[in-house]
Amino acid sequence: MNKWYSLGVDFGTSSVRALIVDTSTGQEVGTAVSLYPSGKSGMLLDSNQPDLARQHPQDYLDGLVSCVKGAIQDAQNNDVGFSPANIVGIGVDTTGSTPIPMDAGGVPLAFDPRFENRLAAMAWLWKDHTSFEEAAQITAEAADKRPHYLAKCGNVYSSEWFWAKIWHCLKEDPEVFQAAYTWVEHADWIPGLLTGTESPDKLRRCICAAGHKALFHHGWGGYPDVDFLTSLEPALARIRASLPNRAFSIGDLAGELTDEWSNKLGLPAGINVAMGAFDAHFGGVGSGIQKGTLVKILGTTTCDIMTAPLSTELPDIPGLCGIVPESVLPGAYGMEAGQSGVGDIFNWFVEVVRPDKLDHVALTAEAEKLLPGQSGLLAIDWHSGNRTILVDPRLSGLILGLNTHSNPAQIYRALIEATAFGARTIVERFEAYGIKVDRVVNCGGIAAKNQMLLQIYADVLNRPMFLSRSTQTCALGSAMAGAVAAGRKAGGHDTFDEAISAMTGVLDEAFYPVPENVAVYDTLFGLYSQLHDAFGIAGSTSDLSRVMKTLLDVRDQVNKAQPQPKPL
Amino acid sequence: MNKWYSLGVDFGTSSVRALIVDTSTGQEVGTAVSLYPSGKSGMLLDSNQPDLARQHPQDYLDGLVSCVKGAIQDAQNNDVGFSPANIVGIGVDTTGSTPIPMDAGGVPLAFDPRFENRLAAMAWLWKDHTSFEEAAQITAEAADKRPHYLAKCGNVYSSEWFWAKIWHCLKEDPEVFQAAYTWVEHADWIPGLLTGTESPDKLRRCICAAGHKALFHHGWGGYPDVDFLTSLEPALARIRASLPNRAFSIGDLAGELTDEWSNKLGLPAGINVAMGAFDAHFGGVGSGIQKGTLVKILGTTTCDIMTAPLSTELPDIPGLCGIVPESVLPGAYGMEAGQSGVGDIFNWFVEVVRPDKLDHVALTAEAEKLLPGQSGLLAIDWHSGNRTILVDPRLSGLILGLNTHSNPAQIYRALIEATAFGARTIVERFEAYGIKVDRVVNCGGIAAKNQMLLQIYADVLNRPMFLSRSTQTCALGSAMAGAVAAGRKAGGHDTFDEAISAMTGVLDEAFYPVPENVAVYDTLFGLYSQLHDAFGIAGSTSDLSRVMKTLLDVRDQVNKAQPQPKPL
Repeated sequence: MNKWYSLGVDFGTSSVRALIVDTSTGQEVGTAVSLYPSGKSGMLLDSNQPDLARQHPQDYLDGLVSCVKGAIQDAQNNDVGFSPANIVGIGVDTTGSTPIPMDAGGVPLAFDPRFENRLAAMAWLWKDHTSFEEAAQITAEAADKRPHYLAKCGNVYSSEWFWAKIWHCLKEDPEVFQAAYTWVEHADWIPGLLTGTESPDKLRRCICAAGHKALFHHGWGGYPDVDFLTSLEPALARIRASLPNRAFSIGDLAGELTDEWSNKLGLPAGINVAMGAFDAHFGGVGSGIQKGTLVKILGTTTCDIMTAPLSTELPDIPGLCGIVPESVLPGAYGMEAGQSGVGDIFNWFVEVVRPDKLDHVALTAEAEKLLPGQSGLLAIDWHSGNRTILVDPRLSGLILGLNTHSNPAQIYRALIEATAFGARTIVERFEAYGIKVDRVVNCGGIAAKNQMLLQIYADVLNRPMFLSRSTQTCALGSAMAGAVAAGRKAGGHDTFDEAISAMTGVLDEAFYPVPENVAVYDTLFGLYSQLHDAFGIAGSTSDLSRVMKTLLDVRDQVNKAQPQPKPL
Repeated sequence: MNKWYSLGVDFGTSSVRALIVDTSTGQEVGTAVSLYPSGKSGMLLDSNQPDLARQHPQDYLDGLVSCVKGAIQDAQNNDVGFSPANIVGIGVDTTGSTPIPMDAGGVPLAFDPRFENRLAAMAWLWKDHTSFEEAAQITAEAADKRPHYLAKCGNVYSSEWFWAKIWHCLKEDPEVFQAAYTWVEHADWIPGLLTGTESPDKLRRCICAAGHKALFHHGWGGYPDVDFLTSLEPALARIRASLPNRAFSIGDLAGELTDEWSNKLGLPAGINVAMGAFDAHFGGVGSGIQKGTLVKILGTTTCDIMTAPLSTELPDIPGLCGIVPESVLPGAYGMEAGQSGVGDIFNWFVEVVRPDKLDHVALTAEAEKLLPGQSGLLAIDWHSGNRTILVDPRLSGLILGLNTHSNPAQIYRALIEATAFGARTIVERFEAYGIKVDRVVNCGGIAAKNQMLLQIYADVLNRPMFLSRSTQTCALGSAMAGAVAAGRKAGGHDTFDEAISAMTGVLDEAFYPVPENVAVYDTLFGLYSQLHDAFGIAGSTSDLSRVMKTLLDVRDQVNKAQPQPKPL
């Protein structure tokens, strides 16, 4: 009996990964990763503009070919039954919103020699916040003229998103803006390219990227109307005219693999390619998302994904970045929240501050020995701003409770705790609006690597933390989309429900809350929330004069409960 | 013609220094330093109680002998005219409040074999804050029953001080408390020992230590009354009974050098020994303090000293730690303010956080290249609490404005700026109560070593920063007291005015404010003040939601004004 496989391609922030999966079992038989060669860890940066982060589209193409070939090789080594001829479908995910300026033929301006050295002609990576002023203007204008637009994206339009970035390009580099016929999300470009549908008249755009991030909603006829865009900036009307009036879910096809790409990748020509999506959404799929399950993709940032059947009466939830029909799965609302910095923050501490030149492993080993509250430290996880629930990039990280004994491990743990408090803030917002979180499934690089973090999350959120069985859920989700794209062909799946039950699962090992820790963290979370609101919400006032004192009281209580070393 | 010399002995936090000075010119002809061997940098610590800091009295005695002999040797090497026989007087300064529990013979309990391993039997170093609860209770009780006590110490009694520490000893180690006949300040013990007057019935206590820190004031008949102390804790009445009703200024004599100590130190027997004082006060004297001059002693902490003639009508100034007649100079009010952590904070960053294992020199070299506001960081200098103007040890350090590019040099500079904002807060408090600051003279280890810091202080305070000519002003001030103790004898000085004009001066090189920097720092100081009041003053409420945004706005403006590197 033949075995059948699907291919998932997952474009991350620093690298692209290919994963080949047995569609009947979810077994991952081959994988490979290619690092982007350009800039710093694949990012083109500007030291005078910490908000800027771009990528070269060529890195995506070179990485794609290299990692797919590597994954095929790896599968051939691991699985005697494997043959690339038995790959039945392809799925693709990318970071986002990562729009790329394109010419009228669907070719990135970065490939045009006139613009090869221009940062504005590159892919505008999700974490680029240079357009914070434009985002704020879009928010203000929409609040005034199109409040229903805002209601679907948590009441604040983000500088991480499509229109703000395009508008900022007009100011940053007008020549690039003028030369761009349209802008295409990275997640749409790759499936378009693989299926020969990359020219703007043919290109299908995914609802995952278009919904809320590009203000697309069937309720108002697709992308925002020309009058609204013109009121922001007349030049945006031209870009609007280049966009279609339809968007597609991952249950839809992008098309069939072209001969050209079949040759480049060593895959069967004509196999189905699914519509693309953002990595986090496919991470949710690869973690077996269902009603009541919160999937947390813990990486550089955190994405928090939930779904609810389209039959649900859903409220608009302030601060929640997006509630979009079919953005995650066909037939369901996708709800997307997230933290702008998680692994980023830990990496900053290890790689930029370089405390005692300790690595993550050494810091974790020391931080694990600490009790909750013992250091007296409290941090806020806003080094890259706050996505949910404040949707505000103009915030920054904070550490307080410092004394002259505060050591690297204590600070490291406080940073991890800060992200846990941020995570709890999101869960509380979901539940405050009636979206019950029955189960939390974690996936992503950090979930696999840092058990201390998961215990802290269990203690802070006072819920068990489950782990997705796969350590590469985004790529797995993409591969599942590839399997569903194959449909009723041999090796395909008819529905995502079927693919989820065949191809996903959670590990037996989970992390459960410890009551003593929960109690201490409840107190610290109260302080975090006070700071969160004081620094994050305009017009809020509160008496913060107990914050430092309460931290010291907690520290002293925790230390008193410990056996004391004897004098001298 | 004979040259005449005096000896100053300066007991610091980690070491003791002896300095031999030509009394007619202020020329420093010989010096030596002895490190205290015990504990960590001379401090006995307890990792579970970061507030605890004790010292072994034996370290003081061993260090005294060693550094005086070293200074004599050094003077003999440097100055052919020098002979120890021409030393005419001795002055002594120490940290404080650093009380030591003593038996009825004036011998420290630390020397009693029963207590040799007991932290409570040691010297309770100025920076020991274990008595924060007792300090708060003294403040509360005095506010209720003796508000005039509080008015002289800035309205808050500190955990750094005499009565709080003694009371805490009763709770920490009742046996030590019971065994102590009295408690003696380090600054009184050494002159007592040198002059054979260390037994409690003979010992003279200096007003510098007794005033405000031990609640001594001629206005209410000396130390606090027994009824008040009994209302705190009946056992304190016994300690009160061991104390005299008189305190002495540095214009007074402790006595004459005993034969025993003359032999131990290699000094002429019978020479006059001045009353001791705290290091900062003598630092003021050694910097040539006079009306309108603020002397800042920049070291582990900062002490800020001013004087005003006794004829002045002085208000009580909230938050100012002490306004005591003759605490600094005879015939003048001494006014003492200070910051609980300055060099301590920089050392924490270099020695505990150890960013990239960079030292002060390397961090300063990078931090110097930054413009004010360019990092977007803002810190609060409360790692060891706040002495002036909040007088609150239950505070902690804070850093905000962090992003994932925030590097060690940026953080280091932000910490220095934080101490500058703390310094400005003190100057503004002086001036708000009519004490005009005409001139700022800096001295102490950091002033001599860190030009960037002085420029930042000039910019933040918008005043020139002058530097004391001597790099060891505390020891110089002690030596000046030794010269005044010699009085009309050959080589002595009749008055401190005479000693100041003969023996002190400022360097020609000073640091002047740069208008662009002043403007940026004015904005940052406004934010610092908002945070200062929000976290430091009970019941204060303010809208902090612009703090992070203003920091980013300032950063962006500063960077826009800079030449930009070209794309890619």
